[in-house]
Amino acid sequence: MQHSKNIAVVGSGLVGSLLALHLKQKGHNVTVFDRRPDVRMVEFSGRSINLAMSNRGWKALRQAGIEEEVRKLAIPLYQRAMHVNSSPVYFQKYGKEGEAIYSISRGVLNRKMIDLAEAAGVEFRFEEKVWDVDLSEAKLFTGDSEKGEWKEYDFDLIFGADGAFSRVRHKMQRQSRFNYSQHFIDVGYKELRIPANADGSHKLDRNSFHIWPRGEFMLIAMPNLDGSFTCTLFLPFEGEHSFERLTTEAEAEKFFSEHFPDIKDEISNLTRDFFRNPTSALVTVKCFPWTYYDKIALVGDAAHAVVPFYGQGMNAGFEDISELGRLEEEHVDDWEAIFREYQTLRKPNADAIAELSYRNFLEMSSKTADPDFLLRKKIEKKFAAKHPDLWKPLYSRVTFSDKPYAEALKIGEEQAAIMDEVMALPNIAEKWDSEEVEQKMISLLKG
Amino acid sequence: MQHSKNIAVVGSGLVGSLLALHLKQKGHNVTVFDRRPDVRMVEFSGRSINLAMSNRGWKALRQAGIEEEVRKLAIPLYQRAMHVNSSPVYFQKYGKEGEAIYSISRGVLNRKMIDLAEAAGVEFRFEEKVWDVDLSEAKLFTGDSEKGEWKEYDFDLIFGADGAFSRVRHKMQRQSRFNYSQHFIDVGYKELRIPANADGSHKLDRNSFHIWPRGEFMLIAMPNLDGSFTCTLFLPFEGEHSFERLTTEAEAEKFFSEHFPDIKDEISNLTRDFFRNPTSALVTVKCFPWTYYDKIALVGDAAHAVVPFYGQGMNAGFEDISELGRLEEEHVDDWEAIFREYQTLRKPNADAIAELSYRNFLEMSSKTADPDFLLRKKIEKKFAAKHPDLWKPLYSRVTFSDKPYAEALKIGEEQAAIMDEVMALPNIAEKWDSEEVEQKMISLLKG
Repeated sequence: MQHSKNIAVVGSGLVGSLLALHLKQKGHNVTVFDRRPDVRMVEFSGRSINLAMSNRGWKALRQAGIEEEVRKLAIPLYQRAMHVNSSPVYFQKYGKEGEAIYSISRGVLNRKMIDLAEAAGVEFRFEEKVWDVDLSEAKLFTGDSEKGEWKEYDFDLIFGADGAFSRVRHKMQRQSRFNYSQHFIDVGYKELRIPANADGSHKLDRNSFHIWPRGEFMLIAMPNLDGSFTCTLFLPFEGEHSFERLTTEAEAEKFFSEHFPDIKDEISNLTRDFFRNPTSALVTVKCFPWTYYDKIALVGDAAHAVVPFYGQGMNAGFEDISELGRLEEEHVDDWEAIFREYQTLRKPNADAIAELSYRNFLEMSSKTADPDFLLRKKIEKKFAAKHPDLWKPLYSRVTFSDKPYAEALKIGEEQAAIMDEVMALPNIAEKWDSEEVEQKMISLLKG
Repeated sequence: MQHSKNIAVVGSGLVGSLLALHLKQKGHNVTVFDRRPDVRMVEFSGRSINLAMSNRGWKALRQAGIEEEVRKLAIPLYQRAMHVNSSPVYFQKYGKEGEAIYSISRGVLNRKMIDLAEAAGVEFRFEEKVWDVDLSEAKLFTGDSEKGEWKEYDFDLIFGADGAFSRVRHKMQRQSRFNYSQHFIDVGYKELRIPANADGSHKLDRNSFHIWPRGEFMLIAMPNLDGSFTCTLFLPFEGEHSFERLTTEAEAEKFFSEHFPDIKDEISNLTRDFFRNPTSALVTVKCFPWTYYDKIALVGDAAHAVVPFYGQGMNAGFEDISELGRLEEEHVDDWEAIFREYQTLRKPNADAIAELSYRNFLEMSSKTADPDFLLRKKIEKKFAAKHPDLWKPLYSRVTFSDKPYAEALKIGEEQAAIMDEVMALPNIAEKWDSEEVEQKMISLLKG
């Protein structure tokens, strides 16, 4: 039986509120601090990408006993719907029959999670900013301003769930031998919206993840329960097609007419929202260590923020909580052992999903229009369908499994090496679905 | 003719004081801030590695008209002296006849540079810590404590020359899209000392860089003018041979007896200094951008700290000043253009010397005992001596040239690829100095 601890969680986002609920269920006293106002009391920010909950996320919610509650907020997406100009929309299934990722509005989910954590007895302190952390004493200092009066809190443990620009991590970073990197990609994003039809139905297929791939940039749309879609435009900051070049309503109008003619008129208040909603940047954050003795641990984006192109940011953060839960069972009250093993086990997986997410960004931005790439995918797909025991696609390993991300990355690289050899076969474009190619792949797999 | 600017330099280290002198010579008003006391008034820290001044460093000093002054503080090292147990010391020349790197005590040089800058009219404000920087207004805020009263200063330009843990960069890092990484290696270092003989002469050859390579760890010694040597022990923090394992005087004594029997008794107060001097960490810092419009620029370690295994940290920082000087001539008063071009030109070279320094660490720690590696070096050396027009060794390109580091890295990689092919020749160990191998290298160079 565990001893009850007095625990602070910094950050009331998705990972922070799930962690708080989890710790409360284990019998601890839990206080959540957030510098922002209660997300239940304010309008959404206009800078969110809808979430794609998949296997790892659901598993963590199931363990916390809230899977069913959250399912009610989610819409299953069984396929990608590719919108290519002057062609009909075509669909690509994500996985096997019944396998789906689930679209959820970040704001809607966050409100629900806070409700559930609060109902379980977690204390939330909103609009209370943490300015400093005493790592070795697990003390927090909060206040109105950096130079003003601070309030001091004593805890047994502190979790930093305060996102990519974590204040808790910031304090850890001042120690010697703390490895840290933040890397921004040259592409930013902006939220837009497609409202529901008058009867409340969706304007596009509601069970698809809609993509308008355009080489260096793309638009995506994910459904909400109210019939609307949350759209995200990913676009370079600078260059020929870029946010920098879209400075007037006329320019924005022209850009959408040219590149997204089929959907432009459905986007509500396009030019107003385009200039009202912020342009946000996308960052990969890596660091190590994630913990400080038995006092401090980083979870979610604070430890491992990734770019969103694999839809795994939240899932990876929720998996941190699953793993912490498992290690608490194993090491009971020994928080130093729990934290040590947590960071040792999770770090390679966090690095792997960061790498996979970044590669997906490169792939989406440069390869989706490449015929070689499409042929490669076609060969893989056919082989995987015929030999599901021999070939599980990387996407499925990441999305529809709870095996380690690092394993998915490793097997994915082995598969890529095999596909490189297959694509180098003479006349591969003609004979791609021949027996010869199939046998070649089988023999390469055995090698 | 340039307009005189009111300029702050944060940091009075080597790069900061050279920059200050340079700017003063150009007719600007220059104030240098440093949180530390005047290095001329205090004892040295016991955490310094001696400097190895080479071509790029001398060039910058020459441009500032202080080369001759500094030469007086320097001892030329023409060769490495390798101390391998149970073998006689053997020597490896660094370059061609007369080519040398120059050993200088960091503290001695820093005192001289501050003297020279002060004599030229630079104002130094020691023990005045910068807490905040207003980037767009080029304001500095200093004070006794983060939460106390601050003093505000207005400048036209601010340079961050405040080292690997730069406060100026720290402020830039809070902007979106600021890329940053700090990476610590698993090896730390400790300063030790070999005093002069009673007659003031050196106990080891004074014109050699002395190395005791031991695989995962090593000791080096560089001469000082007073007859002493500054020694540096590089040793992993953890593991079989590590700082972690040396916690008592008896353990330290035993470690030196076992691994450095030839020099142990010459190191003064070994066990006292071992525990009195700090164990320091080694970091690579990369970031971008380095500048903020026409207001702020980072120089030296603040922009690009590297591990010390190529002896180029200071040289690279001094080269920043050379390049800034050249760009000031070119763009006169247009500081935005100067800064933009400075960061664009210098960043690839900073990345290259970071990479080269890190590779040298890997090489020194794992390969110096590898017979294949020694054979490889032998083949290269012979070929370079015979065909100096075809093969300039990487070390010489970095150390005895002012061509860009990025070019040295690139050519070095081409040379390495050629050597990989040469080393893969059958029976290379027997025929390494044959005509066949020589012709092979010539044909590979032409390919």
